[in-house]
Amino acid sequence: MTPDGIERRSDCPISFALDVFGDRWTLLVVRDLALKGKRTYSELLASDEGIATNILADRLKRLEELGIVVKRRHPDDGRQRLYGLTDAGLDLLPVLVDLIVWSATHDPQSAAPAAFVEEARRDRDGLLARLRGER
Amino acid sequence: MTPDGIERRSDCPISFALDVFGDRWTLLVVRDLALKGKRTYSELLASDEGIATNILADRLKRLEELGIVVKRRHPDDGRQRLYGLTDAGLDLLPVLVDLIVWSATHDPQSAAPAAFVEEARRDRDGLLARLRGER
Repeated sequence: MTPDGIERRSDCPISFALDVFGDRWTLLVVRDLALKGKRTYSELLASDEGIATNILADRLKRLEELGIVVKRRHPDDGRQRLYGLTDAGLDLLPVLVDLIVWSATHDPQSAAPAAFVEEARRDRDGLLARLRGER
Repeated sequence: MTPDGIERRSDCPISFALDVFGDRWTLLVVRDLALKGKRTYSELLASDEGIATNILADRLKRLEELGIVVKRRHPDDGRQRLYGLTDAGLDLLPVLVDLIVWSATHDPQSAAPAAFVEEARRDRDGLLARLRGER
């Protein structure tokens, strides 16, 4: 797994992770696949944050090259593509949950669902297993 | 806490977190303060990733405005400044640990220390308490 078109800055694991998804959009795409049940390009394009189509296409391509996202043909419509997370993508669920808990704690305007945050604090492992199982 | 000069895209907690530190450098500064014991500007400037001084100065300023980093006068040298993490900054330790585990799992070249990763997998809560206590 090598980030495409980005110079690797060091072998530090945090630096590597930021080379892969250290931008404002990549983890939103992962969020939509991991937590919002989105599967198609048009579903991913319809986000509250208003992702631009060229950014979405670029991020999906990179995530596919990195082995985080997999693209499949729709079983009922050969022209449609379905996107999903690989195991490496599902392994980002802990990061997503931590970001949610951090923002819920420190952003007064946060829309983080209280029950989700409470479960993440009380039974993080259980929550992660459930989220992974639901994929 | 409102990210300076960046438009808030939504109240989604993941989007908010990325508005705050969704770039390639901010979490490296947090890493150096949280895990590498760095305290001064010149220590932070001397990273393997070669952060530029204007980027470092910008990120420190933003992190201070956001209440993630605090700047203090050096007790023995009034011209020196010491940087440290606030509670909101220490609350990013779980994110850092998850990024380390993810990269250790998926980056063959990763320099993540094996003992650290093993402890994170076996006793994450204990590791986090220890890291927080060492600050």
